[in-house]
Amino acid sequence: MTQPAAGPPRYVVGVDFGTLSGRAVVVDVADGTVRGEAVHAYRHGVIIERLPDGTPLPPDWALQHPDDHREVLRVAVPAALRAAGVRPEDVCGIGVDATSCTMLPTLADGTPLCELPDLAGRPHAYPKLWKHHAAQRQADRINDVAAARGESWLPRYGGRVSAEWQLAKALEVLQEDPAVFERAERFIEAADWLVWQLCGRETRNVPAAGYKGLRQDGRYPSAEFLRALHPRLDGLLPRVDGPLVPAGAQAGRLTADAARWTGLPAGTAVAAGAIDAHVTAAAARAVEPGRMLAVLGTSTCLIMNAETYREVPGVCGVVDGGVTAGAWGYEAGQSGVGDIFAWYARNALPAHYADEARRRGISPYELLDTLAADQPVGGHGLLALDWHSGNRSVLMDHELSGVLVGLTLATRPEEIWRALLEATAFGARTVVDAFTAAGVTVDELTVAGGLTDNRLLLRIYADVLNRPLHVLDSAHPAALGAAIHAAVAAGAYPDVPAASAAMGAGRRETWHPDPARSAAYDELYAEYRALHDHFGRGGTDVLHRLRALRHHPH
Amino acid sequence: MTQPAAGPPRYVVGVDFGTLSGRAVVVDVADGTVRGEAVHAYRHGVIIERLPDGTPLPPDWALQHPDDHREVLRVAVPAALRAAGVRPEDVCGIGVDATSCTMLPTLADGTPLCELPDLAGRPHAYPKLWKHHAAQRQADRINDVAAARGESWLPRYGGRVSAEWQLAKALEVLQEDPAVFERAERFIEAADWLVWQLCGRETRNVPAAGYKGLRQDGRYPSAEFLRALHPRLDGLLPRVDGPLVPAGAQAGRLTADAARWTGLPAGTAVAAGAIDAHVTAAAARAVEPGRMLAVLGTSTCLIMNAETYREVPGVCGVVDGGVTAGAWGYEAGQSGVGDIFAWYARNALPAHYADEARRRGISPYELLDTLAADQPVGGHGLLALDWHSGNRSVLMDHELSGVLVGLTLATRPEEIWRALLEATAFGARTVVDAFTAAGVTVDELTVAGGLTDNRLLLRIYADVLNRPLHVLDSAHPAALGAAIHAAVAAGAYPDVPAASAAMGAGRRETWHPDPARSAAYDELYAEYRALHDHFGRGGTDVLHRLRALRHHPH
Repeated sequence: MTQPAAGPPRYVVGVDFGTLSGRAVVVDVADGTVRGEAVHAYRHGVIIERLPDGTPLPPDWALQHPDDHREVLRVAVPAALRAAGVRPEDVCGIGVDATSCTMLPTLADGTPLCELPDLAGRPHAYPKLWKHHAAQRQADRINDVAAARGESWLPRYGGRVSAEWQLAKALEVLQEDPAVFERAERFIEAADWLVWQLCGRETRNVPAAGYKGLRQDGRYPSAEFLRALHPRLDGLLPRVDGPLVPAGAQAGRLTADAARWTGLPAGTAVAAGAIDAHVTAAAARAVEPGRMLAVLGTSTCLIMNAETYREVPGVCGVVDGGVTAGAWGYEAGQSGVGDIFAWYARNALPAHYADEARRRGISPYELLDTLAADQPVGGHGLLALDWHSGNRSVLMDHELSGVLVGLTLATRPEEIWRALLEATAFGARTVVDAFTAAGVTVDELTVAGGLTDNRLLLRIYADVLNRPLHVLDSAHPAALGAAIHAAVAAGAYPDVPAASAAMGAGRRETWHPDPARSAAYDELYAEYRALHDHFGRGGTDVLHRLRALRHHPH
Repeated sequence: MTQPAAGPPRYVVGVDFGTLSGRAVVVDVADGTVRGEAVHAYRHGVIIERLPDGTPLPPDWALQHPDDHREVLRVAVPAALRAAGVRPEDVCGIGVDATSCTMLPTLADGTPLCELPDLAGRPHAYPKLWKHHAAQRQADRINDVAAARGESWLPRYGGRVSAEWQLAKALEVLQEDPAVFERAERFIEAADWLVWQLCGRETRNVPAAGYKGLRQDGRYPSAEFLRALHPRLDGLLPRVDGPLVPAGAQAGRLTADAARWTGLPAGTAVAAGAIDAHVTAAAARAVEPGRMLAVLGTSTCLIMNAETYREVPGVCGVVDGGVTAGAWGYEAGQSGVGDIFAWYARNALPAHYADEARRRGISPYELLDTLAADQPVGGHGLLALDWHSGNRSVLMDHELSGVLVGLTLATRPEEIWRALLEATAFGARTVVDAFTAAGVTVDELTVAGGLTDNRLLLRIYADVLNRPLHVLDSAHPAALGAAIHAAVAAGAYPDVPAASAAMGAGRRETWHPDPARSAAYDELYAEYRALHDHFGRGGTDVLHRLRALRHHPH
């Protein structure tokens, strides 16, 4: 393990910008110990229904306010320093990560358009959060045109780009509020904008440019392609062009202004902006090739580095340097996981179960887990497809929907619950199997994220995946990951893998598969795959037809 | 319409023996007006867990106590007479119907074996209720052997007989308690046993002998066939042989003993025993060929007379004189209907819906109906297969299970609810279409039963079936049907059709299909049939494999 040079104790600050709040941590450069932390909720939360001035928003919109982000720097960073009892002069670097693709239009000096008085009532002038889903029409068109033209970058995204990404969101601005598009001198990822606020210099992080900006082999999509989408969309290229900075590299140094907000010394090294799930891989010591990280939350993100590029059908993105410089970063995802469990608990948990949970003083989730824990594999006779929020990997089809088979008059709620947990495990195995089938070996699997509190889920995943499941010992690994990137930017380590090895969190525990249960799950997984292919790969198109009816009922 | 001879007012009594209680009605012979009624709950209810002496019962058992039935005659009949204000001497006939196949072993004098002191602790000595489901193993063997031998009666039952019927239940007794089988001098349907109690003469009604006793073309299954099932099962033949009496014929006259219990005059005409759903056809004026009756309850029974015999794939039984003498009676069924709705309400209705129903002072069913009523057809994007209790018609496969497709994170409880209502309507249409396809025309459709209180259900059925749906105007049509049979037995009418025309209930209302909704449902029904055939006709065998896993999990 590389050790930092001897000398006075040194610390780095990591700041993780989530969907509803930002969290700052102060971390020991030597071993990654978290010395203090602070969290600060966004004043405006997610802006869904109306702008601060009352302007109403259409359905599927999700915006943020840029000053909420600055406020985290002003409030949470000093608070974390105080909590840590660390002197500012002992801090040598700061790194930030954010959700992605969350992007905003700005002037050439970084001023967000929504902060210009005459644009404060214009929805398209605001940062669009990753889960702003109103640009599906634009994404469909991008996919159609790219496929028709045989764009070379398309296979790197499994053949379909997302409505959440940069191009769809920018095209939406151009089509729906061309004046805002013209006023925008820059379109930029939130993490990169925050770095700009800190060091006064505009940079673009390589991972986001690759995964969300479609930059491949050193180029963004061509002006010709963009014009095929819209005559003026080639104007996006100068608006996203900026100095590219690899993961963990230094983007600049803290300005005097930013030093005043954050309480850190001017001149502190500032790391390149980063994507939340990606810095988590560094926190999980999962940046070596073959070590996969799965972040289990409302959705699941699966990330892995590999030495070579291979086309993995169904992967969301393969980017050179997408996780760490010098390796091919693979990202795949399951679009609904914790979201499905929450949907079930809210829409299908009977009153007497809710009462029983209250009586026992536990959550409905815990009650369902307790009741489901001892069921033998297959004992419920159920099988589900985990497509309530569509399917990201490996089908990349957001118009699919969930399926549940095997219901009887004797079926109990905890049995459906277990079938849903299992379905997401089968979904994860489908992704891992796709990597393996494409010749990208998964040697090790670490899990992080909010769902790692659920012991039944972990046991089921280990049994279904039939491999040891290492559970990351970190409550907020993204902020730690941002701090690890800061340590690299500060020169304490030569690269992210070295910093990750020294500062990454350990394993809280490892779940080993039970051979008998794994064998039984092999049988159920075969049924899942058959159902998966029937409903998802053209055996029947009923889910698409039902969705079409839902949108245009009779 | 045939009118009874002029003279003093005359009345008949009908007694309907249900699963949990018996109901007596006093009915005007002239026009079927119900003058009074009384209901009496069975003291022992359904005996499921243990015998009255504490002997425990295995799973899937369902027994009744014969004295509960006698008590209905002793209590409910006199109470109904009092409620009607009718003098006993003005009553000219009594008829009884019961659930079927509900059968019991007796001595040659009709004494139920379970009433012999030395057999009171023997489960097989009790009446086995129709929904006693522990003889599936026996039914499987009967089906295998009958198919292998090419038994000529098998096609009359769509190629599969039920575990609920006489032969499976009798074989279960012989295999599991041979001493009880040997002591049994008779095995007899509950309705026929009740007639025996009333008139002192053992008879067998033609419909039950046909539908539940496998009697076809004047013969029960052969001794040779029975010996192929078990070397001593041919001993069943003398135990079920008895004078056959067609529907509505006179079985005998009330004995002095029975006159004392019931308060009716000795010598009153007693009609042949009858099956509950079948006498309902008479009450619904649905005994003319081409008039189908659907009794919508926990399960659905569909009955129709036709002039000719045709093989209808998936029909449960076709019996000459099975509903009324001189016509071929066709019976089909959906094994889960109201049961599925009750399962949903108990196992999947969220607490805040239960609270809302309470707040509004309505039942959860009414709340769900209200919320689902205005959904456009297809607006929920869901499709269900109504197989939570297996499938009777047209697949005759009790090892199938329910399926639900199209779930999203936005799916609401009332949408699943509506999809379940629709699934049972699609199931009913599948039956009607099977009749039509086999050349047995369904000219008219009347519905009766507990679910006819649900207006949303009726509207959906009319739209899905795309035909007018006549709703029977009778709260308890089976008892009225038994009374109609009594009137025939008493000689007031020449036959059941004539009595039905004069005494049957009218229509409370008629639901006409909405052309636009019907057209939309055609599209969803095509999806239902495709899913139905995929899961039920060998496209995939996953439901059977899941069931096998459920019974023998790992």
